[in-house]
Amino acid sequence: MGKKVVIVGAVAAGPKAAVRIKRLDFSAQVTLIDEDSIISYGGCGIPYYVSGDVPDEKELRSTNFHMVRDKDYFERAKGVTTLTRTKALTIDRKNKKVEIESLETGARDWLDYDALMLATGTEPFVLPIPGADLDGVFCANNIHRAVAIKERIAAGKVSSAVVIGGGAIGVEMAEALKDLWGVDTALVEFFDQLLPNLVDWEMAAILATHLRDNGVAVHLGEPAREIIGEGGTVAGVRTDKRTLAADLVIMAAGVRPRAELARAAGLHVSERGMIVVNDHMQTSDPAIYAAGDCVEITNLVSGRKFFAPLGSLANKEGRVAGDNIAGIPSTFAGGVGSFIMKAFDMSIGSAGLTLSAARAAGYDADISLTSPVDRAHFYPIHGIACFLMVFDRRTRKALGLQGIGPMGDGILARINGAAPLLCAGATIEDFNTIEMAYSPPFSAAIDSVNAASYVAENLCDNRMRKIDMREFFEYMKDPTVQPDWMMLDVRHPKESQPCVDRFGAERWLSLPYDQVRERWRELPTDKTMVVLCNAGTRSYEVQRFLDQVGGPSAVVLAGGINVVKRIDGDLLPGSAG
Amino acid sequence: MGKKVVIVGAVAAGPKAAVRIKRLDFSAQVTLIDEDSIISYGGCGIPYYVSGDVPDEKELRSTNFHMVRDKDYFERAKGVTTLTRTKALTIDRKNKKVEIESLETGARDWLDYDALMLATGTEPFVLPIPGADLDGVFCANNIHRAVAIKERIAAGKVSSAVVIGGGAIGVEMAEALKDLWGVDTALVEFFDQLLPNLVDWEMAAILATHLRDNGVAVHLGEPAREIIGEGGTVAGVRTDKRTLAADLVIMAAGVRPRAELARAAGLHVSERGMIVVNDHMQTSDPAIYAAGDCVEITNLVSGRKFFAPLGSLANKEGRVAGDNIAGIPSTFAGGVGSFIMKAFDMSIGSAGLTLSAARAAGYDADISLTSPVDRAHFYPIHGIACFLMVFDRRTRKALGLQGIGPMGDGILARINGAAPLLCAGATIEDFNTIEMAYSPPFSAAIDSVNAASYVAENLCDNRMRKIDMREFFEYMKDPTVQPDWMMLDVRHPKESQPCVDRFGAERWLSLPYDQVRERWRELPTDKTMVVLCNAGTRSYEVQRFLDQVGGPSAVVLAGGINVVKRIDGDLLPGSAG
Repeated sequence: MGKKVVIVGAVAAGPKAAVRIKRLDFSAQVTLIDEDSIISYGGCGIPYYVSGDVPDEKELRSTNFHMVRDKDYFERAKGVTTLTRTKALTIDRKNKKVEIESLETGARDWLDYDALMLATGTEPFVLPIPGADLDGVFCANNIHRAVAIKERIAAGKVSSAVVIGGGAIGVEMAEALKDLWGVDTALVEFFDQLLPNLVDWEMAAILATHLRDNGVAVHLGEPAREIIGEGGTVAGVRTDKRTLAADLVIMAAGVRPRAELARAAGLHVSERGMIVVNDHMQTSDPAIYAAGDCVEITNLVSGRKFFAPLGSLANKEGRVAGDNIAGIPSTFAGGVGSFIMKAFDMSIGSAGLTLSAARAAGYDADISLTSPVDRAHFYPIHGIACFLMVFDRRTRKALGLQGIGPMGDGILARINGAAPLLCAGATIEDFNTIEMAYSPPFSAAIDSVNAASYVAENLCDNRMRKIDMREFFEYMKDPTVQPDWMMLDVRHPKESQPCVDRFGAERWLSLPYDQVRERWRELPTDKTMVVLCNAGTRSYEVQRFLDQVGGPSAVVLAGGINVVKRIDGDLLPGSAG
Repeated sequence: MGKKVVIVGAVAAGPKAAVRIKRLDFSAQVTLIDEDSIISYGGCGIPYYVSGDVPDEKELRSTNFHMVRDKDYFERAKGVTTLTRTKALTIDRKNKKVEIESLETGARDWLDYDALMLATGTEPFVLPIPGADLDGVFCANNIHRAVAIKERIAAGKVSSAVVIGGGAIGVEMAEALKDLWGVDTALVEFFDQLLPNLVDWEMAAILATHLRDNGVAVHLGEPAREIIGEGGTVAGVRTDKRTLAADLVIMAAGVRPRAELARAAGLHVSERGMIVVNDHMQTSDPAIYAAGDCVEITNLVSGRKFFAPLGSLANKEGRVAGDNIAGIPSTFAGGVGSFIMKAFDMSIGSAGLTLSAARAAGYDADISLTSPVDRAHFYPIHGIACFLMVFDRRTRKALGLQGIGPMGDGILARINGAAPLLCAGATIEDFNTIEMAYSPPFSAAIDSVNAASYVAENLCDNRMRKIDMREFFEYMKDPTVQPDWMMLDVRHPKESQPCVDRFGAERWLSLPYDQVRERWRELPTDKTMVVLCNAGTRSYEVQRFLDQVGGPSAVVLAGGINVVKRIDGDLLPGSAG
């Protein structure tokens, strides 16, 4: 008789481990159980199913050779005993057995195990506000709910929707509703930015503008206070500032790890509710493994534990757990939370720590913000991508990279390049020489990732002095906050003159980049020059020059006007994207 | 007086160093010299200029803010003294001066230096065959020649062309001629594959088929023996097998480092003609630096020196040389030769060692060949990308990754992800957990890079046994070479039956994947089953199953039918791409 393996949870990590174990050890008796009737599905595909990009929910749970991964498939093709609509009630660790209950019949049974694996995933966090239980309020965390949402829309019952929560799922759902169904869609977010904890303000501000440009009403810093109903059905959402009409509300306020089974069994569960595992994916009981969204993993940048509920990691963790259960020593060291997302015509991604997370973790963190051309600028198809690198000024360690740019795999290519270096604890200097492949249709000769670290290095060495985007926007709203600032616009006069005209020569000076060496003595000496250009590179060169010739004090608008106009296309004349 | 810096060569590494030095040390007196009148250009853009994608050659030497980087620009905007049409004749190392000659006037002069930098680049290798000097034979290595080629085509003088050499430039030039000008284009290559040393046969074979599908006549293993002329002008190219008509011949037989100045000065030059530098980019004379295509660098996979004439590396090396010249200690450790290229509707890339290079370097090298869906298969826009990972069976070290797939940044995203790990000496297991960002529009939950290393691991552990593509093609050409093989096609019968019909049931057996567990006893036991499916994943699972139940001996067709049909769309019925 082979080893008895019981796996609780059959979405991603669970099935991955189950089939890996069977391939490694044919004799293993693997039982996969799940409360749901629908198993082994791509949860990340739900927004694309709701949008209609994916016509049939079955595609989310099919192989790429078009077999539906249901109970029958796991049993017939994989040799895995599969119990759906079955709940694991308790674990008897002493006698190594799990009590299960059929959700169909109520029948209970005990399953013996030599190894048990918990892949219990997450549950959506439902905001404790009035009306959260109204008809028409949905989480988007499983296929049943996705089907219900889509049926409601397809039936013509939804003309307006509110998404509560501006995380990845919230943004994807807002796009799905607006873009493909034309639903009047608003998104409300508690924090003052989209994708909190995933990216920093600058990236999120560009994303918010892009969503608004595509017709999604984005309301930031506006927690939903109440979901309003009429006759038991949702009618609207009230924030501190407004009431939004809604026939449909998507509750996308985040997810929480499901660890109740582990906790009841006395396994070590973290304060924040995640199951604690070692790098073999073993819990505090060596016969019990856990993997997927329910566990905490090591953040390889900070060394701290974190919650990274990502399908990519769940599969990797599941495979490592499967290896170890089958007797192959295999380790999962942790991750950096690599993330990528489509939003209308843009893609946005990140890896590692955000500035705020880095500061909270005690780093002397700062950012480099860049906005390079995303391929050789002479190649006919190109665009601007914006990158934000987080680094530690004290140790020169690279802490994170974020990017937003045109839809396609260009941002992915940089996040994927950065992630392995971040995992390895790389410094800015390591990023300077990271070898990104180059050819004009794909990148500039100096890749965006290298360019980002060059700026970080120049900042670390105090060769570059900058003001950040938020400071610039605050100044533009109220110039009196910085009475000694003067904008020094080094772009071509055709670009800079409209700004001089609008803001006045006492605030906005035009001096083209290639004339600075001849004409710098014309500059006022009693002001701080805020040097501006499109991407920030000419500005840096001018700042360096002024430093070295003893010109007026100067700082660079980091990221340049490319970023400004992507956050607010109306702020500067002649610069709308 | 500041430090005197002389830089010989003003294409990529030279200008990069010059402007970096000026930013770091304003007092430095930097002189940049070049034999050409045209400097600081994107040589990699030449095929796109010839094709017409880039209308004006000036764009190849402009900044992204549309200033032409000429002598005047470097002097006015950068403060760098720039001498074009000027040749460096000799280096007097003892007295630290360089003799230069004006190619306009013949006037000679000596320039003193505190630091000298050689960025002398490469020269094209012109095959020593008759006719190489005929009118109409061009290298594509500088802008003057590119202009001449384009003028000739635009004047309607070119109806047929032959490209000699199937390296990256040869392939790009063939595309430029065929795709945008409709010129009847042939490509001849000495080796039996395109992109020798950059990728292995399987990847190159897919590329060759794609070029042929797009109308380029590709002749492999056919060295050009003679260029035939008529009245001093090119009329054709003769190989061992045929004579090809040609009004234009592009000589793209590779490049050689230019080290004559270094050699004459007694600096250390390698046997293969590259300037030897340390990781500060210093030559054997500490006052003389070298960077760019003329130097040898360390291959971070093999530890050996190699020749990597890539614009991306030239810029990085130039920056490091500039740092050190300006007094900032900075190092360049080496590279893995990351490479990416567009070819019609596909992109192809690589990093690290090829199988043949790895074997030549003494590794017990093998490959994993995979052909996964390049995004979530349920996402409406997706394709197949093929990957080849090279690894060392003895040490389990990952040695290289190659990929070919639909045009876009998808292959780039995987090469960029692999390169930092290869630089760090990663093992297969490190690749198993490399964190590639995931979302359905960008990748599968198990990224192609992870999938490639999973297969490599299964091969290393002898869990997977395979036959390689070349063996399969040889067998299909002549089944008698492997009389005990039988194809076991585990695809859906709709896909497998046409093969059974064509090749006969004694050679080609259909047994659908999900029926193997029930029906494996029907298989003949006196044959070796070559298990086939689209991507190879089902095949592996079936092989593992047969191993463990004591079924017939089985091997997997690595890479699967996805690769077969991309190499030869006619070989199998019903499988044309």
